[in-house]
Amino acid sequence: MTTRIPVAVLGATGAVGQRFVQLLQNHPLFEIVALTASDRSEGKRYAEAARWVTDGDIPAELRDRMLLATDAGAVQRAAPETRFVFSALPNESAQEAEPAFARAGMTVFSNASVYRMASDVPLVIPEVNAGHLALLRHQRAARGWTGGIVCNTNCTVSGPAMSLRPLHDRFGVKRVFCVSMQAISGAGYPGVPSLDITDNVLPFIKGEEEKVGAETRKLLGALGEDRIQDADIAVSAHCNRVQVIDGHMVTMSVELETAATPEQAAQAMRDYACADVAGLPSAPEHAIIVHDALDRPQPRRDRMNGGGMSTSVGRMRREELFGERGIKYMTLAHNTIRGAAGGSLLNAETLLRMLW
Amino acid sequence: MTTRIPVAVLGATGAVGQRFVQLLQNHPLFEIVALTASDRSEGKRYAEAARWVTDGDIPAELRDRMLLATDAGAVQRAAPETRFVFSALPNESAQEAEPAFARAGMTVFSNASVYRMASDVPLVIPEVNAGHLALLRHQRAARGWTGGIVCNTNCTVSGPAMSLRPLHDRFGVKRVFCVSMQAISGAGYPGVPSLDITDNVLPFIKGEEEKVGAETRKLLGALGEDRIQDADIAVSAHCNRVQVIDGHMVTMSVELETAATPEQAAQAMRDYACADVAGLPSAPEHAIIVHDALDRPQPRRDRMNGGGMSTSVGRMRREELFGERGIKYMTLAHNTIRGAAGGSLLNAETLLRMLW
Amino acid sequence: MTTRIPVAVLGATGAVGQRFVQLLQNHPLFEIVALTASDRSEGKRYAEAARWVTDGDIPAELRDRMLLATDAGAVQRAAPETRFVFSALPNESAQEAEPAFARAGMTVFSNASVYRMASDVPLVIPEVNAGHLALLRHQRAARGWTGGIVCNTNCTVSGPAMSLRPLHDRFGVKRVFCVSMQAISGAGYPGVPSLDITDNVLPFIKGEEEKVGAETRKLLGALGEDRIQDADIAVSAHCNRVQVIDGHMVTMSVELETAATPEQAAQAMRDYACADVAGLPSAPEHAIIVHDALDRPQPRRDRMNGGGMSTSVGRMRREELFGERGIKYMTLAHNTIRGAAGGSLLNAETLLRMLW
Amino acid sequence: MTTRIPVAVLGATGAVGQRFVQLLQNHPLFEIVALTASDRSEGKRYAEAARWVTDGDIPAELRDRMLLATDAGAVQRAAPETRFVFSALPNESAQEAEPAFARAGMTVFSNASVYRMASDVPLVIPEVNAGHLALLRHQRAARGWTGGIVCNTNCTVSGPAMSLRPLHDRFGVKRVFCVSMQAISGAGYPGVPSLDITDNVLPFIKGEEEKVGAETRKLLGALGEDRIQDADIAVSAHCNRVQVIDGHMVTMSVELETAATPEQAAQAMRDYACADVAGLPSAPEHAIIVHDALDRPQPRRDRMNGGGMSTSVGRMRREELFGERGIKYMTLAHNTIRGAAGGSLLNAETLLRMLW
Repeated sequence: MTTRIPVAVLGATGAVGQRFVQLLQNHPLFEIVALTASDRSEGKRYAEAARWVTDGDIPAELRDRMLLATDAGAVQRAAPETRFVFSALPNESAQEAEPAFARAGMTVFSNASVYRMASDVPLVIPEVNAGHLALLRHQRAARGWTGGIVCNTNCTVSGPAMSLRPLHDRFGVKRVFCVSMQAISGAGYPGVPSLDITDNVLPFIKGEEEKVGAETRKLLGALGEDRIQDADIAVSAHCNRVQVIDGHMVTMSVELETAATPEQAAQAMRDYACADVAGLPSAPEHAIIVHDALDRPQPRRDRMNGGGMSTSVGRMRREELFGERGIKYMTLAHNTIRGAAGGSLLNAETLLRMLW
Repeated sequence: MTTRIPVAVLGATGAVGQRFVQLLQNHPLFEIVALTASDRSEGKRYAEAARWVTDGDIPAELRDRMLLATDAGAVQRAAPETRFVFSALPNESAQEAEPAFARAGMTVFSNASVYRMASDVPLVIPEVNAGHLALLRHQRAARGWTGGIVCNTNCTVSGPAMSLRPLHDRFGVKRVFCVSMQAISGAGYPGVPSLDITDNVLPFIKGEEEKVGAETRKLLGALGEDRIQDADIAVSAHCNRVQVIDGHMVTMSVELETAATPEQAAQAMRDYACADVAGLPSAPEHAIIVHDALDRPQPRRDRMNGGGMSTSVGRMRREELFGERGIKYMTLAHNTIRGAAGGSLLNAETLLRMLW
Repeated sequence: MTTRIPVAVLGATGAVGQRFVQLLQNHPLFEIVALTASDRSEGKRYAEAARWVTDGDIPAELRDRMLLATDAGAVQRAAPETRFVFSALPNESAQEAEPAFARAGMTVFSNASVYRMASDVPLVIPEVNAGHLALLRHQRAARGWTGGIVCNTNCTVSGPAMSLRPLHDRFGVKRVFCVSMQAISGAGYPGVPSLDITDNVLPFIKGEEEKVGAETRKLLGALGEDRIQDADIAVSAHCNRVQVIDGHMVTMSVELETAATPEQAAQAMRDYACADVAGLPSAPEHAIIVHDALDRPQPRRDRMNGGGMSTSVGRMRREELFGERGIKYMTLAHNTIRGAAGGSLLNAETLLRMLW
Repeated sequence: MTTRIPVAVLGATGAVGQRFVQLLQNHPLFEIVALTASDRSEGKRYAEAARWVTDGDIPAELRDRMLLATDAGAVQRAAPETRFVFSALPNESAQEAEPAFARAGMTVFSNASVYRMASDVPLVIPEVNAGHLALLRHQRAARGWTGGIVCNTNCTVSGPAMSLRPLHDRFGVKRVFCVSMQAISGAGYPGVPSLDITDNVLPFIKGEEEKVGAETRKLLGALGEDRIQDADIAVSAHCNRVQVIDGHMVTMSVELETAATPEQAAQAMRDYACADVAGLPSAPEHAIIVHDALDRPQPRRDRMNGGGMSTSVGRMRREELFGERGIKYMTLAHNTIRGAAGGSLLNAETLLRMLW
């Protein structure tokens, strides 16, 4: 208890910031010592500034916590012991703020997309590529930082990338056609107007399709001296918004390098275990859950599997257009837990274990 | 006016039957002379037996029409002048009833799937393959019928097939990866329980994925002496249910036989015109509407284009996984109008023009 | 045709502004000669500035119309012939702009609430109180205007007030307990965030409950020399938001002054006819439609009755807590047609008839 | 552990049956020893017969449990130690089955409505009227049973009745106008078709409005020798279905016997504590939670308060139509937990404490 790591949450009033706060309640390794918000909310009490849109209530012990500006100096003055920083900042603010915190000696676990593709920044899903965290050493040296930046992926990528890891290891992955049906919480709050999504589907999400390919290749890539060597996987994505609160569904049509039956593919996923995260507080018992029922996974019924941290896979079958090297299936991952705040937490827990 | 064709609607109390009744109101070519229902409802008034689930009210002039049994003899006795029959029967009843009506001299326009793949039965979207109606002559001869059976496609197939017609004509279509987000009305009434679809996506629709490939190949196939020669197109489908009232969205990743830019593909669709249906009452002004706005088509906002009979296409762009022969886009078609009752009506109107 | 009245739409880019534009397409009496928007959009083409959220497409003939500032002078310079002005302005802009247009000689039909309760401004639903339009004469004299302001009611009030008119005429209305279930379109666009309303009900709409009582009393009041004498009716309201696109449902528990059976109350509503609007383009055939089916009215199935201008009433039964003077029922009215743009149009048509 | 009471769940495959199974997992006082279903499912494994519609997965240890027929003899033969029986039976089966179990010595905690109004059957919400359980003694004597039947209320009644208890105790309750917005899960599975409720409200729920009044009066009534003396409270209800998964909202306009301010009414609810249930496993910490936020309670955000067992109250304000004796507010209760399975569990726990 006395050894909990002091952490700050940047952008604590928004939807992802609230998830951080929720997931950090009673966390065995981390303890919130600072919450930041935009200048407009600086100096207000948390309960006053945050329109709480997450299920349940705002944690009682943080209701009256005074909000700091999102500024490294301000956090250092108010809570000099802060070591880890969880960032729920939008790209505009993340661009300047995150390096400033890193320069000041804090390790930033970021949900923004702005540094994800930087060559010296690890983009990490621990069960997929915990080893990439080693890039931090190079990042610090190259940038002269005492802290650093670790990114987690776009929320749409997390399910597909997790499901591809065991396939890529055993059979090699060559091409992927994927189509997403994404939850409204992925757009934050207030986000998607109800007049746009009721009795409707939105067939476009700005910038999303490009990220799916680029991030998947980096996640499954190989760690080099000073950068990640992207995996040689071609990815095509159609991204859509549907009326679901939480949980991104993604259909996958995958061409492997070598032949595999759907049963072998499912077994590879079932067998998949990641020693790097075993036993960590935010790690689910099963990184991947393979469903047998024909009509699963479903967002409402399966998104909370593994506390929202498991990726659900279902409908595993032959992709006939790729012959004996083709499989197709559906993935589901909770976009604001696994694909956002929970992902950052697990990144931090994994790094902590490596450091000790 | 005096020459309107007398028609019957089989299975008039269900969701598709109601659409037939609605679309046949004030139809310039057809006049309802008989409505049939299951034995349970025989002899009841239409307004009494039909739980009206369609927008607007049950047509006043049909409220008191007495329901007949779904039996060719019963229809002939009650309305011997009946020539065309619109069938909204489920497969179980269609299997015996539709041939019986055909044998009795009536031409059946069917929404059931049971005879769609029969070699001598035309499966028709008039703008795609009106010429296949000529197969009726062989059907009559071979089966000794004076009437016949004409099928329309699965509601999920209609948008994709329509969009592929001009592409196949100009560039050749080789492979298609498609993923559907289908409306709840596609499952009929009562159909999908609200507890299953609220805040949810259902990733499985029984028998649907197989139909998408088979029907697309037949629709785009070539008319032979006594059968259709299937088009040589490989199709992969993932079919999903989302919470939308009407309108099936389908993402399309298409590999062409020859190179084409997205602009050329869009132009081919814009240019597409079908002389066979021009001016028919149920034919939309534009068979295909190509949207420029990045976030269209959308089910609620675009499904009623062309009175529910146009196919909307949008987000035309390069499918990079197929290089210069690849395009990808989204289609939307109204599943209970274009994909069901309206499709049958247009089939009937097209045949009528050919006969005269 | 040559005699169509030239009209302007103020705030044409928003949700209600779009409805005005939609309903004015091919209107037999009015012709749009000017569209205004906020300063930010001035000088832009309509199609460029308006994010079209209404069903169907933006009218082709207005796509390239250049937007004017919402300024009486600007409209007079660009379209000096403008006589009627339909205002979809929010209260902040309406407060100054509407009087300016009135001063400049134009008659403003307003959807804003800011002048509804002003003593010399008629608040009108023509079938309820067309006679109140006579207050315009006093308004002009008192304010020295050559034009004027006519308000329509809050969208929640229109159904209840319409249903109370025949009851008040025949039996007298003493007390009303009403509870609304209001559509999301009532909050405009972007309006209600989807994260707030999916799988949810919002039990509070700012300022709404107060308006229900005050506006009902004014609508059913008596025209005096220079003001309306409010009706002596006590009204209590609970206002809620539910996930429905269009159509406000309101439950009504009514205490009458004299005894009436539910059948008599229903008959009073069925008999109700308003000569003032008979035959006007936007007037529905039936101001009130009384449903017999136990489970009607329903928003999706009944909101478009009478082109969205009829009020639907159903579930008429005894309110036992008021004994033989009590009835209870449900009302439904389309909030963006009858309760907003369509209501203003009918006000303008009614005034036009009175003037001629 | 060794002293857990052996219990059976009747009708275990339906929606309420599944909730029983879910809530009984790891229950400290009860242990499932038998699951029953309709004849059709008898002899099947639970996982095979139950289409699991509840969140999360079917409990692993019950997947393979063999289903018994819903027959007292069958349960006694298979699990003779069964003492308590939780019944999720529909009325048709409950009518004969529940007395049979009671006759055979088991105490039935029933969700059916069929025996709720029987004069010798306690209808209980423990925090409202735990004392009524004493009626069981008379019931046993009069009917010659060694077991008995205890009913819980209609799911719509639970929130209102709970909120009225402290008001009735302090101020007296005279009249109540209430309007419900009920969740779809209240209709069971498959229940409400999605085509009926999407973008819609259903203004009618069969038999519901009558129950609200009758059950409220019995719940708040006084225990007599051999029956409950109904409370003298007049109740009017309008019942509606809205598209919410779980959680019934009810607006309340209450006329008290004596004057009270909204603050006094809220304080009476906040102060309310029920010694009869304090510390029981299913009892929430607060029977009633009074919200200060203007826009609460909301179903999705508040239904799980107190593990789904607390009643949320909000928007407490003056009901002006009743002057200084009037208050109005909103209640929310989880219909399948507090209003169904959880309510029965708490009834059983309360009885158990009384017996010991």
